[in-house]
Amino acid sequence: MRLVRYGRPGKEKPGLIDDEGKLRDLSGVLADIDAATLSDKALRKLAKVATASLPLVRGTPRFGVPVAGIGKFIGIGLNYADHAAEAGLEAPKEPIVFMKAISCLNGPDDAIVLPKGSKKTDWEVELGVVIGTRAQYVSEADALNYVAGYCVVNDLSERSFQLERGPQWDKGKGCDTFGPVGPWLVTRDEVPDVQRLDLYLEVNGKRMQTGSTETMIFTVAQIVSYLSQFMTLEPGDVIATGTPPGVGAGRKPQRFLKKGDTLRAGIAGLGEQQQDVLAWQAK
Amino acid sequence: MRLVRYGRPGKEKPGLIDDEGKLRDLSGVLADIDAATLSDKALRKLAKVATASLPLVRGTPRFGVPVAGIGKFIGIGLNYADHAAEAGLEAPKEPIVFMKAISCLNGPDDAIVLPKGSKKTDWEVELGVVIGTRAQYVSEADALNYVAGYCVVNDLSERSFQLERGPQWDKGKGCDTFGPVGPWLVTRDEVPDVQRLDLYLEVNGKRMQTGSTETMIFTVAQIVSYLSQFMTLEPGDVIATGTPPGVGAGRKPQRFLKKGDTLRAGIAGLGEQQQDVLAWQAK
Repeated sequence: MRLVRYGRPGKEKPGLIDDEGKLRDLSGVLADIDAATLSDKALRKLAKVATASLPLVRGTPRFGVPVAGIGKFIGIGLNYADHAAEAGLEAPKEPIVFMKAISCLNGPDDAIVLPKGSKKTDWEVELGVVIGTRAQYVSEADALNYVAGYCVVNDLSERSFQLERGPQWDKGKGCDTFGPVGPWLVTRDEVPDVQRLDLYLEVNGKRMQTGSTETMIFTVAQIVSYLSQFMTLEPGDVIATGTPPGVGAGRKPQRFLKKGDTLRAGIAGLGEQQQDVLAWQAK
Repeated sequence: MRLVRYGRPGKEKPGLIDDEGKLRDLSGVLADIDAATLSDKALRKLAKVATASLPLVRGTPRFGVPVAGIGKFIGIGLNYADHAAEAGLEAPKEPIVFMKAISCLNGPDDAIVLPKGSKKTDWEVELGVVIGTRAQYVSEADALNYVAGYCVVNDLSERSFQLERGPQWDKGKGCDTFGPVGPWLVTRDEVPDVQRLDLYLEVNGKRMQTGSTETMIFTVAQIVSYLSQFMTLEPGDVIATGTPPGVGAGRKPQRFLKKGDTLRAGIAGLGEQQQDVLAWQAK
């Protein structure tokens, strides 16, 4: 299933995208797409609903983050071999873990707002993993069973905040609007091989990032298992699993986002997000 | 006011501690202590309730985290001049910001569970700041007006996870049970000078940490203002503002927590928390 949340910010309703790509309303079936919806059992039950019986939604509403009530938004750093090579950095020996502030979550097509004083806001298209079942000390072999599904994430990062203002990255990772997620949460049964997905990102129509989850240093199963050794993963937690080559900081000359830019980022089978870049201004 | 949440985990009710130190039930007045309760307006309204009219709670129930629905749990690193000196580290030029996973939140007297494989779990008594009003780009002069109140936090940290397994600290900061908060949320009107509070922590009855918020490198007002330049602080967000000297990693020889240890940590006027240390075991 391709699950979505659609409507005005804070007023989203649950929906799904049918086989013809049409949006149908799920609000008669469940209250929201959230921790309670994401277990295998709940998803199996939902899959039994006859799609044709769900009301079609008219028009082209905004999409929100496809999961409500996200508790943790975890990031993995430097997880693509070709990206590490591009950055001139050694591949990490074990996953690098950071956290994105929950307040940075953004609908997939909502505007990105450059923070005040930002000179180095950068893009990072990433595979997002949504946890479906509570995971504590799970093995790599079992790890994907704890995953509800996958989505597109743009792990926007202000490089000067992240790298030039102290040793910890979180300052540059959690700025408001820096976490577009969606458009869809695609349940894991529809992703036959999560280590064989193509990712891309364009700025103003120009391809900047091209990659495949094949070159991940740590696989999704390894990441989920690894994280679960340090903290319990809860249903609805989202993990951004690292970015392929082509970020602005890695280009010569470097290229960062500016007001008026437009972004498109997508992953094969998981949909595409599109954002306008705005400068911050007092309301 | 000294606000609390009391009762079994996940079933806490709101309450307050009266002038005689007695626990009274607030559940007839409000649903919970959460974002909706923490604004100046809501707190003013609550302060008008006649304390004597509130039912006394019998027995000695467990205390939970005194705020429900915490969105961000932010930590500040190396923020005490005497602690930085003890660690042989230079004082940071600007606040070091990291994030504790929400899933590490723990009642003030709930057991601390050493993660599997932990050899270096350490203590850090800290002043906790609870945000009351949405704060974005606020000035230092205005910053404390966005604070609902203060509480005791123990920023437990697994030093090998934090420092020896890659460059980012969050891995060692957010393990389950590593975030005891409480017992009380003391509203800011009852804390005349937040930069003049004594903190202490004992292990097995032996004093390990002794400090005062006087030696903070960055004041609470500076921290709130600073963070608000990077991300919007939301009502209910909690900031752990750094620890004074005396952590286990700074002792000679080093001393880390082991099964059977007991911790007591407190701040003048903000109450005391007490924890037993357990080893992790499969349920």
